[in-house]
Amino acid sequence: MSREINKDTQLCMSLSGRPGNFGTRFHNSLYQALDLNYVYKAFSTQDIEAAVKGVRALGIRGCAVSMPFKEACIPFLDELDPSATAIQSVNTIVNDDGFLRAYNTDYIAVAKLLDSHQVPRDAVFALRGSGGMGKAVVAAIRDAGFKTGYIIARNEANGRALAEEYGYEWKAEVGDLAVDMVVNVTPIGMPGTPEADSLAFEPAVIDRASIVFDVVVAQATETPLIRYGREHGKKIITGEEVAALQAVEQFVLYTGIRPSDEQIEAAAAHARR
Amino acid sequence: MSREINKDTQLCMSLSGRPGNFGTRFHNSLYQALDLNYVYKAFSTQDIEAAVKGVRALGIRGCAVSMPFKEACIPFLDELDPSATAIQSVNTIVNDDGFLRAYNTDYIAVAKLLDSHQVPRDAVFALRGSGGMGKAVVAAIRDAGFKTGYIIARNEANGRALAEEYGYEWKAEVGDLAVDMVVNVTPIGMPGTPEADSLAFEPAVIDRASIVFDVVVAQATETPLIRYGREHGKKIITGEEVAALQAVEQFVLYTGIRPSDEQIEAAAAHARR
Repeated sequence: MSREINKDTQLCMSLSGRPGNFGTRFHNSLYQALDLNYVYKAFSTQDIEAAVKGVRALGIRGCAVSMPFKEACIPFLDELDPSATAIQSVNTIVNDDGFLRAYNTDYIAVAKLLDSHQVPRDAVFALRGSGGMGKAVVAAIRDAGFKTGYIIARNEANGRALAEEYGYEWKAEVGDLAVDMVVNVTPIGMPGTPEADSLAFEPAVIDRASIVFDVVVAQATETPLIRYGREHGKKIITGEEVAALQAVEQFVLYTGIRPSDEQIEAAAAHARR
Repeated sequence: MSREINKDTQLCMSLSGRPGNFGTRFHNSLYQALDLNYVYKAFSTQDIEAAVKGVRALGIRGCAVSMPFKEACIPFLDELDPSATAIQSVNTIVNDDGFLRAYNTDYIAVAKLLDSHQVPRDAVFALRGSGGMGKAVVAAIRDAGFKTGYIIARNEANGRALAEEYGYEWKAEVGDLAVDMVVNVTPIGMPGTPEADSLAFEPAVIDRASIVFDVVVAQATETPLIRYGREHGKKIITGEEVAALQAVEQFVLYTGIRPSDEQIEAAAAHARR
């Protein structure tokens, strides 16, 4: 039985161009499991300024921010946490009595996963992608102490800019570079897209690596990259792990409570159904 | 079992200086009884402009407005329904794809109760009060066709202004005027206030009348005025009726669905618990 909403119930929410159900179901499921007087709901908007100012004015406790608002929301916030400053991209707003502090929990989640999977810091990586999420992942990798790596992007201008910003090298393709970790931050392999069946790196490149990291969320299945990596005995880090962990970090920021691994798994399983 | 909130769930809300639980419990209870994909929550704000613009930007379906925002919200709305225009006071905002149309369901509820209680239009009334709610009630009475009545207010300026605006007469006290209906729109008789035990009109005045109308909500009990009227065989119209009916009108505006009397009574009983 859920708690009944009352005047003291805290609202948390998300803002995105195309709201999904995962966050709403994940957070509400945890609120119920932990008996917290919170409720969560996904929103979209045509007016990011009024939406963020509305979050402040209505005392909405927390707000997840997705595409296309991760940079657009910044002018209306009061303070950026270092996780968001580094990449000038926000995915989480916390409202303390009208003061809006913003975080990037994708960055936080990637940093934590590099630790928990004990990825050696001397691993040479190749990261494919140059979009907003690419920035969060490259920044987390750089701040974790990885010295040598390549940004792989067909768009030279974007690829070079990202590589140079974080002290790495741009390449159009991996070619015969020897890399220990391949990281995909493009939509390649994403279910429901034209590239759903494509492998983000050539088999020969993956064969030479020992770690496969894909930020694409494959829903009930696996991306081709993760499947290939798993079948070839590589250490794998999945988009589901990033998505779940970044959502947990949001949950902790909103409520001050860190759920147990079992509670997180149950909420994530419920949200995926 | 309640519906689970998802991305399609519509949010309705209230804005007031001191949020209570009645609206939240009343609306959520009806959503559940009617299996509607809606959720309701009370909010307050320090910034009515940002709050109203946030309602629009977030696509919040409906917003009840209470003191002290009933007039302050008007500059940020797109259109006033006649129920709000007449008195320049809003208690309900409906958001249709970003277009905010505002209503006054107190006015609508009073008009409906004068009909359903079959109050004869030639009844002479004495109405005590001159605040914002007084305006809604006087306007409903005037628009229902009552020709003769008195606005009773100790504050002569406010009382005269209200009386003259609607074509009635101001008096400081009822004295020995013969009136058929007494209407209280002051806090006199409101539980938890210094005047909780006071009678809004002198017994001799009530004795001469046949209809007693009190807009004060007495919660689990009765106001002294309603009790006196009931014990003396008068036709009575209570603040609970106004509060419940205005909430029902809001519900209909937000959802397009009119609940049955049984459903309304069950929701109101739940909300009062």
